Amino acid sequence: MKRTVFFVSESTGITAETLGHSLLSQFDSVDFEQVYMPYINTEARARALTQRLHEAAERDGARPLVFSTMLDASIAAILREGDCFHLELFEQFVEPLSQELGVSPSRESGRSHAITKPSMYTKRIEAINFAMSNDDGMRPDNFRHADVVLVGVSRSGKTPTCLYLAIHYGLRAANHPLTEDDFEREALPPEVCAVKEKVFGLTIEARRLHLIREERRPGSEYASLARCRNDIRLAHEMLGRLGVPVLDTTSQSIEEISAQVLRGLRNSGQH
Amino acid sequence: MKRTVFFVSESTGITAETLGHSLLSQFDSVDFEQVYMPYINTEARARALTQRLHEAAERDGARPLVFSTMLDASIAAILREGDCFHLELFEQFVEPLSQELGVSPSRESGRSHAITKPSMYTKRIEAINFAMSNDDGMRPDNFRHADVVLVGVSRSGKTPTCLYLAIHYGLRAANHPLTEDDFEREALPPEVCAVKEKVFGLTIEARRLHLIREERRPGSEYASLARCRNDIRLAHEMLGRLGVPVLDTTSQSIEEISAQVLRGLRNSGQH
Repeated sequence: MKRTVFFVSESTGITAETLGHSLLSQFDSVDFEQVYMPYINTEARARALTQRLHEAAERDGARPLVFSTMLDASIAAILREGDCFHLELFEQFVEPLSQELGVSPSRESGRSHAITKPSMYTKRIEAINFAMSNDDGMRPDNFRHADVVLVGVSRSGKTPTCLYLAIHYGLRAANHPLTEDDFEREALPPEVCAVKEKVFGLTIEARRLHLIREERRPGSEYASLARCRNDIRLAHEMLGRLGVPVLDTTSQSIEEISAQVLRGLRNSGQH
Repeated sequence: MKRTVFFVSESTGITAETLGHSLLSQFDSVDFEQVYMPYINTEARARALTQRLHEAAERDGARPLVFSTMLDASIAAILREGDCFHLELFEQFVEPLSQELGVSPSRESGRSHAITKPSMYTKRIEAINFAMSNDDGMRPDNFRHADVVLVGVSRSGKTPTCLYLAIHYGLRAANHPLTEDDFEREALPPEVCAVKEKVFGLTIEARRLHLIREERRPGSEYASLARCRNDIRLAHEMLGRLGVPVLDTTSQSIEEISAQVLRGLRNSGQH
């Protein structure tokens, strides 16, 4: 069974897409074709979309699903009359919230992902720049300026997680790759030890690491299962001695790892 | 007026936070203190949270708001009885959707941001690696492998936007900084011209650029308003000659710019 799904919004569509994806993840057995429709902010665009809804219904033999976050009643009305199963994700919460707060909603669209708080936005952009210039242990002397320092072997997921932490949460995230230098010295660099309270270890199963490294350098000693096993074992020993939390990235997404890092920082009073 | 808001979830909390933020952005006049509570996945954790809700209510003199995405009825019930204004963002859409699809929901929590489709997840990680190694025009010969190439003067927002496009949409995003070399030659590099159909220009107002560059290199010629004005004028001329869409980053967030890039790619049939 195939169903076409449209994520529709007057602005970026990120909210519709996020909640829509979450809802669809509850129905694994259905094959969803997902279409992203941001900036449906005029009646003309809404009417053009209803034409596409009609075409999808004909093609699939079932009406498409529409997940929308609409603040403009006239545009929402055009969608609602379309040939679709329509879930408005936003509107029904606005009124109860307005009553609880005793304040009228602004009804301005595109506020969710706009720069409404310049200082917070600047913080995020600075965090991204920090993550970029402190990737891969480039400047260990900067670890003291970081909010979080991820430590793990090559290809354990440090870089994508640091970037996600910076972009999504505005955290200044740096990382240190555990290399043969560290293993030979049998010690982490002093710059890492000095900021222990904001260090998180990342680990990964050897077989998975082997596959990832093989993609990068096929047939190399670096990618061999034996080398992966050894790197991970040594990393575990060192992180264990340092006594920091260790998160397993084998089957967790960067979103999941990041949420756990944030939870860890909060529980230890660091953030 | 101050109100405390809790974003609560059995897993990452990203969905609750995204929709919650969107809803709060409609009520600008209220001062919200936002607390992020992922992994409330046991009854004990839920009960500990109700204690925090009670404390917030006492402190603020008004009950806290709770935005949750809960699939476990027993945990949700504990929250619902707490001293709070509770909006469950997920549950009420699951049943109508299940009826429309004729399929029961899995009721498994943590599906939204887990790796449910390994190939899609791998694509995102590869896109992040691509963005990292193709930042700042590092390898122009790679532009032909990119899904999108952003072109603009230094500090116009290329890097954060590329990273967002990669992390959020799995797009292989590269960028080329317009430098004095390009301006002197009065031409874009051939590698950029060759992939014109996936090029987007980024521009920014001179005063804003001046402020951003001043942060980076205070008092420098590079940061001067005259230089910023000149760089932007020359960039406009070159991008105009190439005939590519130009997006203004002065007051738009990376989310907004990215949504417009995606829309542009789709309209031109590139994605």
